[in-house]
Amino acid sequence: MPVTIDPHVALTWIERVAGRARTRERDEIAVEEPLEIRVDGKPVAVTMRTPGEDEELAVGFLAGEALIEGPGNIASVGPTEDLAANVVDVRTTRGLRRDPAKERSFHLTSSCGVCGKAALEHVHLHAPEAEAPAAGSIEPQLVIEAPGRAREDQAVFDRTGGLHATALFGRDGELLALREDVGRHNAMDKAIGAMLIAGRHPLPGALACLSGRVSFELVQKAALAQLAGVVAVGAPTSLAVQLAEERGLLLCGFVRERAFNVYAGADLLRSG
Amino acid sequence: MPVTIDPHVALTWIERVAGRARTRERDEIAVEEPLEIRVDGKPVAVTMRTPGEDEELAVGFLAGEALIEGPGNIASVGPTEDLAANVVDVRTTRGLRRDPAKERSFHLTSSCGVCGKAALEHVHLHAPEAEAPAAGSIEPQLVIEAPGRAREDQAVFDRTGGLHATALFGRDGELLALREDVGRHNAMDKAIGAMLIAGRHPLPGALACLSGRVSFELVQKAALAQLAGVVAVGAPTSLAVQLAEERGLLLCGFVRERAFNVYAGADLLRSG
Repeated sequence: MPVTIDPHVALTWIERVAGRARTRERDEIAVEEPLEIRVDGKPVAVTMRTPGEDEELAVGFLAGEALIEGPGNIASVGPTEDLAANVVDVRTTRGLRRDPAKERSFHLTSSCGVCGKAALEHVHLHAPEAEAPAAGSIEPQLVIEAPGRAREDQAVFDRTGGLHATALFGRDGELLALREDVGRHNAMDKAIGAMLIAGRHPLPGALACLSGRVSFELVQKAALAQLAGVVAVGAPTSLAVQLAEERGLLLCGFVRERAFNVYAGADLLRSG
Repeated sequence: MPVTIDPHVALTWIERVAGRARTRERDEIAVEEPLEIRVDGKPVAVTMRTPGEDEELAVGFLAGEALIEGPGNIASVGPTEDLAANVVDVRTTRGLRRDPAKERSFHLTSSCGVCGKAALEHVHLHAPEAEAPAAGSIEPQLVIEAPGRAREDQAVFDRTGGLHATALFGRDGELLALREDVGRHNAMDKAIGAMLIAGRHPLPGALACLSGRVSFELVQKAALAQLAGVVAVGAPTSLAVQLAEERGLLLCGFVRERAFNVYAGADLLRSG
Protein backbone atom coordinates (compact mmCIF):
# COMPACT_ATOMS: atom_id res chain seq x y z
CA MET A 1 0.00 0.00 0.00
CA PRO A 2 1.36 3.45 -0.87
CA VAL A 3 2.66 5.42 2.14
CA THR A 4 2.23 9.18 2.05
CA ILE A 5 5.56 10.88 2.80
CA ASP A 6 4.51 14.48 2.22
CA PRO A 7 1.15 15.98 1.26
CA HIS A 8 1.92 15.58 -2.45
CA VAL A 9 3.96 12.41 -2.70
CA ALA A 10 3.49 8.77 -1.64
CA LEU A 11 6.02 5.96 -1.75
CA THR A 12 5.09 2.60 -3.20
CA TRP A 13 6.77 -0.59 -4.35
CA ILE A 14 6.63 -1.26 -8.05
CA GLU A 15 7.86 -3.96 -10.38
CA ARG A 16 9.72 -2.52 -13.29
CA VAL A 17 9.35 -4.73 -16.39
CA ALA A 18 11.93 -4.15 -19.14
CA GLY A 19 12.07 -6.86 -21.77
CA ARG A 20 12.32 -10.08 -19.75
CA ALA A 21 13.87 -8.39 -16.72
CA ARG A 22 11.73 -7.65 -13.70
CA THR A 23 13.05 -5.65 -10.78
CA ARG A 24 11.40 -4.53 -7.57
CA GLU A 25 11.89 -0.81 -6.94
CA ARG A 26 10.60 1.96 -4.74
CA ASP A 27 8.73 4.65 -6.64
CA GLU A 28 7.09 7.96 -5.87
CA ILE A 29 3.50 8.61 -6.92
CA ALA A 30 1.20 11.62 -6.64
CA VAL A 31 -1.20 11.61 -3.68
CA GLU A 32 -4.93 11.68 -4.43
CA GLU A 33 -7.51 12.12 -1.64
CA PRO A 34 -11.05 13.51 -1.60
CA LEU A 35 -11.68 16.98 -0.13
CA GLU A 36 -15.02 18.33 1.00
CA ILE A 37 -15.42 22.06 0.50
CA ARG A 38 -17.83 23.71 2.93
CA VAL A 39 -19.06 27.27 2.89
CA ASP A 40 -20.24 28.71 6.19
CA GLY A 41 -20.40 25.17 7.54
CA LYS A 42 -22.48 23.75 4.67
CA PRO A 43 -21.06 21.17 2.20
CA VAL A 44 -20.83 22.59 -1.33
CA ALA A 45 -18.62 20.16 -3.22
CA VAL A 46 -16.36 17.12 -2.96
CA THR A 47 -13.35 16.91 -5.23
CA MET A 48 -10.52 14.40 -5.62
CA ARG A 49 -7.33 16.38 -5.16
CA THR A 50 -3.68 16.33 -4.14
CA PRO A 51 -3.62 17.53 -0.50
CA GLY A 52 -1.57 20.45 0.75
CA GLU A 53 -3.13 23.67 -0.51
CA ASP A 54 -6.72 23.02 0.48
CA GLU A 55 -7.53 26.61 1.43
CA GLU A 56 -6.31 27.85 -1.94
CA LEU A 57 -8.23 25.13 -3.74
CA ALA A 58 -11.46 25.91 -1.90
CA VAL A 59 -11.28 29.65 -2.47
CA GLY A 60 -10.16 29.32 -6.10
CA PHE A 61 -12.97 26.84 -6.75
CA LEU A 62 -15.56 29.28 -5.43
CA ALA A 63 -14.13 32.09 -7.58
CA GLY A 64 -14.04 29.83 -10.65
CA GLU A 65 -17.70 28.93 -10.18
CA ALA A 66 -18.63 32.61 -9.81
CA LEU A 67 -19.83 31.91 -6.25
CA ILE A 68 -17.64 34.65 -4.79
CA GLU A 69 -16.29 37.80 -6.38
CA GLY A 70 -13.01 38.35 -4.63
CA PRO A 71 -11.06 38.71 -1.40
CA GLY A 72 -13.79 40.90 0.12
CA ASN A 73 -16.12 37.89 0.27
CA ILE A 74 -13.80 35.78 2.43
CA ALA A 75 -13.87 36.14 6.22
CA SER A 76 -11.66 33.14 6.93
CA VAL A 77 -10.71 29.78 5.50
CA GLY A 78 -9.24 26.75 7.18
CA PRO A 79 -9.62 23.10 8.09
CA THR A 80 -12.39 21.96 10.42
CA GLU A 81 -11.52 20.88 13.96
CA ASP A 82 -10.83 17.31 12.89
CA LEU A 83 -7.67 17.86 10.90
CA ALA A 84 -7.74 14.32 9.50
CA ALA A 85 -11.17 14.81 8.01
CA ASN A 86 -10.18 16.29 4.64
CA VAL A 87 -12.69 19.09 5.06
CA VAL A 88 -12.04 22.77 4.49
CA ASP A 89 -14.50 25.44 5.58
CA VAL A 90 -14.71 28.85 3.95
CA ARG A 91 -16.39 31.51 6.07
CA THR A 92 -17.84 34.31 3.98
CA THR A 93 -18.57 37.91 4.90
CA ARG A 94 -22.02 37.93 3.33
CA GLY A 95 -22.75 34.47 1.91
CA LEU A 96 -22.35 33.25 -1.65
CA ARG A 97 -23.54 35.13 -4.71
CA ARG A 98 -26.01 32.33 -5.41
CA ASP A 99 -27.14 29.15 -3.69
CA PRO A 100 -25.56 26.36 -5.73
CA ALA A 101 -28.01 23.81 -4.25
CA LYS A 102 -31.01 25.74 -5.55
CA GLU A 103 -29.54 26.31 -8.97
CA ARG A 104 -30.26 24.03 -11.87
CA SER A 105 -27.13 23.09 -13.74
CA PHE A 106 -25.82 26.09 -15.61
CA HIS A 107 -25.81 24.16 -18.83
CA LEU A 108 -29.59 24.05 -18.82
CA THR A 109 -31.94 26.66 -20.11
CA SER A 110 -35.59 26.13 -20.88
CA SER A 111 -35.21 27.45 -24.41
CA CYS A 112 -32.48 25.31 -25.87
CA GLY A 113 -31.96 22.39 -23.55
CA VAL A 114 -28.34 21.65 -22.90
CA CYS A 115 -25.88 23.31 -25.22
CA GLY A 116 -22.64 25.15 -25.55
CA LYS A 117 -24.57 28.39 -26.04
CA ALA A 118 -26.09 28.04 -22.57
CA ALA A 119 -22.68 27.36 -21.10
CA LEU A 120 -21.27 30.49 -22.75
CA GLU A 121 -24.23 32.53 -21.51
CA HIS A 122 -23.62 31.39 -17.96
CA VAL A 123 -20.14 32.90 -18.05
CA HIS A 124 -21.55 36.04 -19.65
CA LEU A 125 -24.09 36.39 -16.84
CA HIS A 126 -21.72 35.75 -13.97
CA ALA A 127 -18.34 37.03 -15.04
CA PRO A 128 -17.63 40.65 -14.21
CA GLU A 129 -16.81 42.98 -17.09
CA ALA A 130 -13.10 42.52 -17.63
CA GLU A 131 -10.60 45.27 -18.22
CA ALA A 132 -9.80 44.36 -21.84
CA PRO A 133 -6.09 43.80 -22.46
CA ALA A 134 -4.69 46.17 -25.09
CA ALA A 135 -3.85 44.96 -28.59
CA GLY A 136 -0.18 44.02 -28.86
CA SER A 137 0.27 44.01 -25.09
CA ILE A 138 1.51 40.41 -24.73
CA GLU A 139 5.03 39.39 -25.73
CA PRO A 140 5.17 36.24 -27.90
CA GLN A 141 8.42 35.44 -26.10
CA LEU A 142 6.53 35.12 -22.81
CA VAL A 143 4.22 32.54 -24.38
CA ILE A 144 7.18 30.54 -25.69
CA GLU A 145 9.03 30.63 -22.37
CA ALA A 146 6.10 30.06 -20.01
CA PRO A 147 5.98 26.23 -20.04
CA GLY A 148 9.73 25.92 -19.49
CA ARG A 149 9.72 28.44 -16.65
CA ALA A 150 6.73 26.67 -15.07
CA ARG A 151 8.43 23.31 -15.48
CA GLU A 152 11.46 24.51 -13.53
CA ASP A 153 9.24 24.94 -10.49
CA GLN A 154 7.21 21.78 -11.01
CA ALA A 155 8.74 19.89 -8.13
CA VAL A 156 6.23 17.10 -7.71
CA PHE A 157 5.71 16.43 -11.37
CA ASP A 158 9.38 15.80 -11.77
CA ARG A 159 9.21 13.19 -9.01
CA THR A 160 5.99 11.46 -9.96
CA GLY A 161 5.13 12.39 -13.54
CA GLY A 162 1.59 12.39 -12.28
CA LEU A 163 0.43 15.96 -11.81
CA HIS A 164 -1.12 18.73 -13.84
CA ALA A 165 0.25 22.23 -13.28
CA THR A 166 -1.01 25.77 -13.67
CA ALA A 167 1.39 28.71 -13.51
CA LEU A 168 0.24 32.32 -13.37
CA PHE A 169 2.40 35.00 -14.91
CA GLY A 170 1.87 38.71 -14.20
CA ARG A 171 1.61 41.56 -16.67
CA ASP A 172 5.39 42.00 -16.70
CA GLY A 173 6.09 38.31 -17.14
CA GLU A 174 6.87 37.57 -13.50
CA LEU A 175 5.83 34.16 -12.12
CA LEU A 176 3.05 34.83 -9.61
CA ALA A 177 2.14 31.31 -8.54
CA LEU A 178 2.56 27.71 -9.63
CA ARG A 179 0.38 24.92 -8.31
CA GLU A 180 0.13 21.21 -9.10
CA ASP A 181 -2.62 18.66 -8.63
CA VAL A 182 -3.84 15.29 -9.89
CA GLY A 183 -6.78 17.22 -11.35
CA ARG A 184 -6.20 19.93 -13.94
CA HIS A 185 -9.11 21.99 -12.64
CA ASN A 186 -7.72 21.84 -9.14
CA ALA A 187 -4.28 23.07 -10.22
CA MET A 188 -5.88 26.17 -11.74
CA ASP A 189 -8.20 26.68 -8.75
CA LYS A 190 -5.21 26.49 -6.41
CA ALA A 191 -3.12 28.99 -8.37
CA ILE A 192 -5.97 31.50 -8.60
CA GLY A 193 -6.95 30.77 -5.00
CA ALA A 194 -3.41 31.45 -3.80
CA MET A 195 -3.54 34.91 -5.36
CA LEU A 196 -7.02 35.52 -4.00
CA ILE A 197 -5.94 34.67 -0.44
CA ALA A 198 -3.06 37.10 -0.92
CA GLY A 199 -5.66 39.76 -1.76
CA ARG A 200 -4.85 39.80 -5.47
CA HIS A 201 -8.00 39.05 -7.44
CA PRO A 202 -9.02 39.65 -10.19
CA LEU A 203 -5.75 39.51 -12.14
CA PRO A 204 -6.14 41.65 -15.28
CA GLY A 205 -3.25 41.25 -17.69
CA ALA A 206 -2.11 37.95 -16.18
CA LEU A 207 -1.57 34.75 -18.19
CA ALA A 208 -2.26 31.18 -17.08
CA CYS A 209 0.10 28.51 -18.38
CA LEU A 210 -1.31 24.96 -18.34
CA SER A 211 0.68 21.73 -18.55
CA GLY A 212 -2.01 19.92 -20.52
CA ARG A 213 -5.10 20.47 -22.62
CA VAL A 214 -7.61 23.31 -22.38
CA SER A 215 -11.30 22.59 -21.83
CA PHE A 216 -14.19 25.03 -21.58
CA GLU A 217 -14.13 25.07 -17.81
CA LEU A 218 -10.49 26.14 -17.64
CA VAL A 219 -11.16 29.13 -19.90
CA GLN A 220 -14.20 29.88 -17.75
CA LYS A 221 -11.98 30.05 -14.67
CA ALA A 222 -9.59 32.34 -16.54
CA ALA A 223 -12.45 34.63 -17.62
CA LEU A 224 -13.81 34.86 -14.08
CA ALA A 225 -10.34 35.82 -12.80
CA GLN A 226 -10.15 38.39 -15.65
CA LEU A 227 -6.92 36.94 -16.97
CA ALA A 228 -5.63 38.19 -20.32
CA GLY A 229 -5.19 34.67 -21.65
CA VAL A 230 -4.38 30.98 -21.38
CA VAL A 231 -1.35 29.29 -22.93
CA ALA A 232 -1.08 25.53 -22.92
CA VAL A 233 1.21 22.70 -23.86
CA GLY A 234 -1.78 20.72 -25.14
CA ALA A 235 -4.75 21.27 -27.44
CA PRO A 236 -7.90 23.32 -26.73
CA THR A 237 -11.46 22.10 -27.28
CA SER A 238 -14.00 23.77 -29.55
CA LEU A 239 -15.94 25.29 -26.67
CA ALA A 240 -12.76 26.59 -25.05
CA VAL A 241 -11.95 28.42 -28.28
CA GLN A 242 -15.46 29.85 -28.55
CA LEU A 243 -15.41 31.18 -25.01
CA ALA A 244 -11.95 32.70 -25.42
CA GLU A 245 -13.11 34.44 -28.61
CA GLU A 246 -16.23 35.76 -26.93
CA ARG A 247 -14.31 37.12 -23.95
CA GLY A 248 -11.41 38.53 -25.96
CA LEU A 249 -8.90 36.22 -24.27
CA LEU A 250 -5.64 35.07 -25.81
CA LEU A 251 -5.70 31.29 -26.22
CA CYS A 252 -2.51 29.52 -27.33
CA GLY A 253 -2.00 25.76 -27.62
CA PHE A 254 0.77 23.31 -28.51
CA VAL A 255 3.35 25.72 -27.13
CA ARG A 256 6.76 24.35 -28.06
CA GLU A 257 10.28 25.68 -27.86
CA ARG A 258 10.03 27.80 -30.97
CA ALA A 259 6.41 27.74 -32.08
CA PHE A 260 2.79 27.74 -30.95
CA ASN A 261 -0.75 27.97 -32.28
CA VAL A 262 -3.02 30.93 -31.50
CA TYR A 263 -6.68 29.91 -31.34
CA ALA A 264 -8.14 33.22 -30.14
CA GLY A 265 -7.04 36.78 -29.38
CA ALA A 266 -4.09 36.85 -31.81
CA ASP A 267 -4.33 40.67 -31.83
CA LEU A 268 -3.21 40.73 -28.18
CA LEU A 269 0.24 39.49 -29.19
CA ARG A 270 2.87 42.10 -29.94
CA SER A 271 3.86 41.67 -33.57
CA GLY A 272 7.13 42.24 -35.39
CA MET B 1 -15.79 30.68 -34.37
CA PRO B 2 -15.10 26.95 -34.71
CA VAL B 3 -17.42 25.13 -37.12
CA THR B 4 -18.31 21.53 -36.29
CA ILE B 5 -17.68 19.32 -39.32
CA ASP B 6 -18.40 15.95 -37.71
CA PRO B 7 -19.47 15.03 -34.19
CA HIS B 8 -15.86 14.85 -33.02
CA VAL B 9 -14.04 17.51 -35.02
CA ALA B 10 -14.46 21.25 -35.55
CA LEU B 11 -12.61 23.49 -37.99
CA THR B 12 -11.16 26.78 -36.81
CA TRP B 13 -8.74 29.44 -38.03
CA ILE B 14 -5.49 29.68 -36.11
CA GLU B 15 -2.39 31.80 -36.31
CA ARG B 16 0.71 29.73 -36.25
CA VAL B 17 3.62 31.59 -34.63
CA ALA B 18 7.09 30.22 -35.38
CA GLY B 19 9.93 32.53 -34.46
CA ARG B 20 8.95 35.86 -36.08
CA ALA B 21 6.78 34.25 -38.74
CA ARG B 22 3.02 34.27 -38.35
CA THR B 23 0.76 32.39 -40.73
CA ARG B 24 -2.99 31.99 -40.82
CA GLU B 25 -4.03 28.35 -41.15
CA ARG B 26 -7.07 26.15 -40.83
CA ASP B 27 -6.86 23.68 -37.97
CA GLU B 28 -8.96 20.85 -36.57
CA ILE B 29 -9.91 20.81 -32.91
CA ALA B 30 -11.84 18.37 -30.74
CA VAL B 31 -15.51 19.19 -30.18
CA GLU B 32 -16.68 19.76 -26.60
CA GLU B 33 -20.37 20.15 -25.75
CA PRO B 34 -22.39 19.51 -22.60
CA LEU B 35 -24.62 16.43 -22.40
CA GLU B 36 -27.45 15.88 -19.96
CA ILE B 37 -27.95 12.27 -18.94
CA ARG B 38 -31.51 11.43 -17.92
CA VAL B 39 -32.78 8.19 -16.44
CA ASP B 40 -36.45 7.40 -16.94
CA GLY B 41 -36.96 11.04 -17.89
CA LYS B 42 -35.23 12.49 -14.82
CA PRO B 43 -31.93 14.46 -15.08
CA VAL B 44 -29.10 12.62 -13.33
CA ALA B 45 -25.93 14.35 -14.52
CA VAL B 46 -24.47 16.88 -16.94
CA THR B 47 -21.05 16.23 -18.40
CA MET B 48 -18.87 18.07 -20.91
CA ARG B 49 -18.13 15.57 -23.65
CA THR B 50 -17.25 15.01 -27.29
CA PRO B 51 -20.56 14.25 -29.05
CA GLY B 52 -21.22 11.15 -31.10
CA GLU B 53 -21.53 8.18 -28.75
CA ASP B 54 -23.97 9.62 -26.27
CA GLU B 55 -25.87 6.40 -25.65
CA GLU B 56 -22.65 4.57 -24.85
CA LEU B 57 -21.48 7.39 -22.61
CA ALA B 58 -24.76 7.47 -20.68
CA VAL B 59 -24.91 3.73 -20.12
CA GLY B 60 -21.22 3.44 -19.30
CA PHE B 61 -21.51 6.32 -16.84
CA LEU B 62 -24.37 4.59 -15.01
CA ALA B 63 -22.40 1.34 -14.83
CA GLY B 64 -19.27 3.16 -13.60
CA GLU B 65 -21.26 4.81 -10.82
CA ALA B 66 -22.77 1.45 -9.80
CA LEU B 67 -26.24 2.78 -10.64
CA ILE B 68 -26.98 -0.15 -12.96
CA GLU B 69 -25.60 -3.67 -12.94
CA GLY B 70 -25.61 -4.64 -16.58
CA PRO B 71 -27.52 -5.01 -19.84
CA GLY B 72 -30.56 -6.43 -18.01
CA ASN B 73 -31.22 -3.02 -16.44
CA ILE B 74 -31.54 -1.18 -19.76
CA ALA B 75 -34.88 -1.09 -21.56
CA SER B 76 -33.84 1.49 -24.15
CA VAL B 77 -31.49 4.41 -24.62
CA GLY B 78 -31.65 7.26 -27.06
CA PRO B 79 -31.87 11.01 -27.62
CA THR B 80 -34.96 12.95 -26.55
CA GLU B 81 -37.37 14.22 -29.20
CA ASP B 82 -35.43 17.44 -29.68
CA LEU B 83 -32.29 16.05 -31.30
CA ALA B 84 -30.44 19.36 -30.94
CA ALA B 85 -30.91 19.36 -27.19
CA ASN B 86 -27.85 17.34 -26.17
CA VAL B 87 -29.95 15.16 -23.91
CA VAL B 88 -29.89 11.38 -23.76
CA ASP B 89 -32.52 9.39 -21.91
CA VAL B 90 -31.90 5.92 -20.52
CA ARG B 91 -35.04 3.92 -19.85
CA THR B 92 -34.50 1.22 -17.24
CA THR B 93 -36.34 -2.04 -16.68
CA ARG B 94 -36.66 -1.54 -12.91
CA GLY B 95 -35.12 1.80 -11.96
CA LEU B 96 -31.62 2.50 -10.66
CA ARG B 97 -29.96 0.54 -7.88
CA ARG B 98 -30.00 3.68 -5.73
CA ASP B 99 -31.39 7.20 -6.00
CA PRO B 100 -28.33 9.38 -6.65
CA ALA B 101 -30.25 12.51 -5.60
CA LYS B 102 -30.97 11.09 -2.14
CA GLU B 103 -27.44 9.88 -1.61
CA ARG B 104 -24.85 11.94 0.20
CA SER B 105 -21.58 12.01 -1.67
CA PHE B 106 -19.97 8.59 -1.49
CA HIS B 107 -16.82 10.11 -0.10
CA LEU B 108 -18.62 10.97 3.11
CA THR B 109 -19.16 8.75 6.09
CA SER B 110 -20.15 9.92 9.52
CA SER B 111 -17.22 8.13 11.14
CA CYS B 112 -14.24 9.55 9.31
CA GLY B 113 -15.43 12.52 7.35
CA VAL B 114 -14.07 12.58 3.85
CA CYS B 115 -11.23 10.23 3.13
CA GLY B 116 -9.75 7.75 0.75
CA LYS B 117 -10.90 4.91 3.02
CA ALA B 118 -14.53 5.94 2.52
CA ALA B 119 -14.00 6.10 -1.23
CA LEU B 120 -12.53 2.58 -1.23
CA GLU B 121 -15.42 1.32 0.91
CA HIS B 122 -17.94 2.71 -1.55
CA VAL B 123 -16.46 0.53 -4.31
CA HIS B 124 -16.40 -2.42 -1.94
CA LEU B 125 -20.09 -1.94 -1.16
CA HIS B 126 -21.29 -1.46 -4.70
CA ALA B 127 -18.99 -3.50 -6.90
CA PRO B 128 -20.06 -7.07 -7.54
CA GLU B 129 -17.68 -9.84 -6.52
CA ALA B 130 -15.36 -10.17 -9.48
CA GLU B 131 -14.17 -13.40 -11.00
CA ALA B 132 -10.53 -13.10 -9.95
CA PRO B 133 -8.10 -13.36 -12.87
CA ALA B 134 -5.63 -16.23 -12.47
CA ALA B 135 -2.00 -15.60 -11.54
CA GLY B 136 0.16 -15.44 -14.64
CA SER B 137 -2.84 -15.08 -16.95
CA ILE B 138 -1.84 -11.78 -18.60
CA GLU B 139 0.90 -11.59 -21.22
CA PRO B 140 3.43 -8.79 -20.60
CA GLN B 141 3.61 -8.44 -24.37
CA LEU B 142 -0.06 -7.40 -24.46
CA VAL B 143 0.69 -4.62 -21.98
CA ILE B 144 3.62 -3.38 -24.08
CA GLU B 145 1.65 -3.46 -27.32
CA ALA B 146 -1.67 -2.08 -26.08
CA PRO B 147 -0.94 1.70 -26.38
CA GLY B 148 0.43 1.33 -29.90
CA ARG B 149 -2.48 -0.80 -31.06
CA ALA B 150 -4.92 1.67 -29.51
CA ARG B 151 -3.10 4.57 -31.13
CA GLU B 152 -3.55 3.04 -34.58
CA ASP B 153 -7.30 3.39 -34.14
CA GLN B 154 -7.22 6.80 -32.52
CA ALA B 155 -8.56 8.67 -35.51
CA VAL B 156 -9.59 11.91 -33.90
CA PHE B 157 -6.59 12.26 -31.65
CA ASP B 158 -4.36 12.10 -34.67
CA ARG B 159 -6.28 14.99 -36.20
CA THR B 160 -6.68 17.20 -33.17
CA GLY B 161 -4.21 16.05 -30.52
CA GLY B 162 -6.99 16.89 -28.13
CA LEU B 163 -8.63 13.69 -26.98
CA HIS B 164 -8.19 11.07 -24.31
CA ALA B 165 -8.70 7.48 -25.36
CA THR B 166 -9.67 4.21 -23.69
CA ALA B 167 -9.22 0.91 -25.49
CA LEU B 168 -10.60 -2.37 -24.16
CA PHE B 169 -8.77 -5.58 -24.93
CA GLY B 170 -10.35 -9.00 -24.41
CA ARG B 171 -8.91 -12.01 -22.64
CA ASP B 172 -7.17 -13.16 -25.81
CA GLY B 173 -5.75 -9.77 -26.59
CA GLU B 174 -8.34 -8.79 -29.19
CA LEU B 175 -9.34 -5.10 -29.38
CA LEU B 176 -12.96 -4.94 -28.19
CA ALA B 177 -13.62 -1.20 -28.34
CA LEU B 178 -11.79 2.10 -28.57
CA ARG B 179 -13.41 5.39 -27.68
CA GLU B 180 -12.13 8.96 -27.49
CA ASP B 181 -13.35 12.03 -25.66
CA VAL B 182 -12.19 15.41 -24.38
CA GLY B 183 -12.74 13.94 -20.89
CA ARG B 184 -10.78 10.90 -19.78
CA HIS B 185 -13.69 9.60 -17.71
CA ASN B 186 -15.97 9.88 -20.69
CA ALA B 187 -13.65 7.89 -22.94
CA MET B 188 -13.73 5.01 -20.45
CA ASP B 189 -17.49 5.30 -19.92
CA LYS B 190 -18.02 5.18 -23.69
CA ALA B 191 -15.84 2.10 -24.20
CA ILE B 192 -17.50 0.18 -21.36
CA GLY B 193 -20.92 1.50 -22.43
CA ALA B 194 -20.37 0.28 -25.98
CA MET B 195 -19.78 -3.24 -24.69
CA LEU B 196 -22.73 -3.00 -22.34
CA ILE B 197 -25.08 -1.97 -25.14
CA ALA B 198 -23.78 -4.97 -27.09
CA GLY B 199 -24.81 -7.13 -24.13
CA ARG B 200 -21.26 -7.76 -22.96
CA HIS B 201 -20.95 -6.64 -19.36
CA PRO B 202 -19.21 -7.33 -17.03
CA LEU B 203 -15.94 -8.07 -18.85
CA PRO B 204 -13.86 -10.42 -16.68
CA GLY B 205 -10.34 -10.87 -18.00
CA ALA B 206 -10.43 -7.71 -20.11
CA LEU B 207 -7.83 -4.94 -19.91
CA ALA B 208 -8.41 -1.19 -20.28
CA CYS B 209 -5.63 0.80 -21.96
CA LEU B 210 -5.66 4.53 -21.15
CA SER B 211 -3.89 7.27 -23.11
CA GLY B 212 -3.14 9.34 -20.02
CA ARG B 213 -2.93 9.17 -16.26
CA VAL B 214 -4.90 6.92 -13.91
CA SER B 215 -6.99 8.40 -11.12
CA PHE B 216 -9.08 6.62 -8.49
CA GLU B 217 -12.27 7.00 -10.45
CA LEU B 218 -10.88 5.26 -13.53
CA VAL B 219 -9.87 2.22 -11.48
CA GLN B 220 -13.31 2.33 -9.88
CA LYS B 221 -14.91 2.09 -13.32
CA ALA B 222 -12.61 -0.83 -14.15
CA ALA B 223 -13.51 -2.61 -10.91
CA LEU B 224 -17.23 -2.17 -11.51
CA ALA B 225 -16.85 -3.64 -15.01
CA GLN B 226 -14.83 -6.51 -13.43
CA LEU B 227 -11.86 -5.88 -15.71
CA ALA B 228 -8.61 -7.73 -14.97
CA GLY B 229 -6.59 -4.54 -15.08
CA VAL B 230 -5.70 -1.07 -16.31
CA VAL B 231 -2.59 -0.20 -18.31
CA ALA B 232 -1.73 3.42 -18.98
CA VAL B 233 0.73 5.61 -20.78
CA GLY B 234 0.78 7.99 -17.80
CA ALA B 235 1.19 7.77 -14.03
CA PRO B 236 -1.31 6.48 -11.47
CA THR B 237 -2.31 8.29 -8.28
CA SER B 238 -1.92 6.90 -4.76
CA LEU B 239 -5.62 6.13 -4.39
CA ALA B 240 -5.72 4.43 -7.79
CA VAL B 241 -2.92 2.11 -6.64
CA GLN B 242 -4.68 1.39 -3.34
CA LEU B 243 -7.93 0.48 -5.03
CA ALA B 244 -6.21 -1.72 -7.61
CA GLU B 245 -4.38 -3.56 -4.80
CA GLU B 246 -7.58 -4.04 -2.83
CA ARG B 247 -9.46 -5.40 -5.84
CA GLY B 248 -6.64 -7.57 -7.13
CA LEU B 249 -6.42 -5.62 -10.39
CA LEU B 250 -3.32 -5.33 -12.54
CA LEU B 251 -2.26 -1.67 -12.70
CA CYS B 252 0.57 -0.70 -15.07
CA GLY B 253 1.81 2.83 -15.77
CA PHE B 254 4.37 4.59 -17.97
CA VAL B 255 3.95 1.89 -20.60
CA ARG B 256 6.67 2.45 -23.22
CA GLU B 257 7.91 0.50 -26.17
CA ARG B 258 10.03 -1.88 -24.15
CA ALA B 259 9.26 -1.24 -20.48
CA PHE B 260 6.55 -0.41 -17.97
CA ASN B 261 5.94 -0.10 -14.24
CA VAL B 262 3.60 -2.44 -12.36
CA TYR B 263 1.91 -0.71 -9.43
CA ALA B 264 -0.46 -3.52 -8.42
CA GLY B 265 -1.26 -7.10 -9.33
CA ALA B 266 2.20 -8.03 -10.62
CA ASP B 267 1.37 -11.72 -9.98
CA LEU B 268 -1.23 -11.58 -12.77
CA LEU B 269 1.52 -11.17 -15.36
CA ARG B 270 2.92 -14.29 -16.94
CA SER B 271 6.60 -14.47 -15.99
CA GLY B 272 9.60 -15.87 -17.83
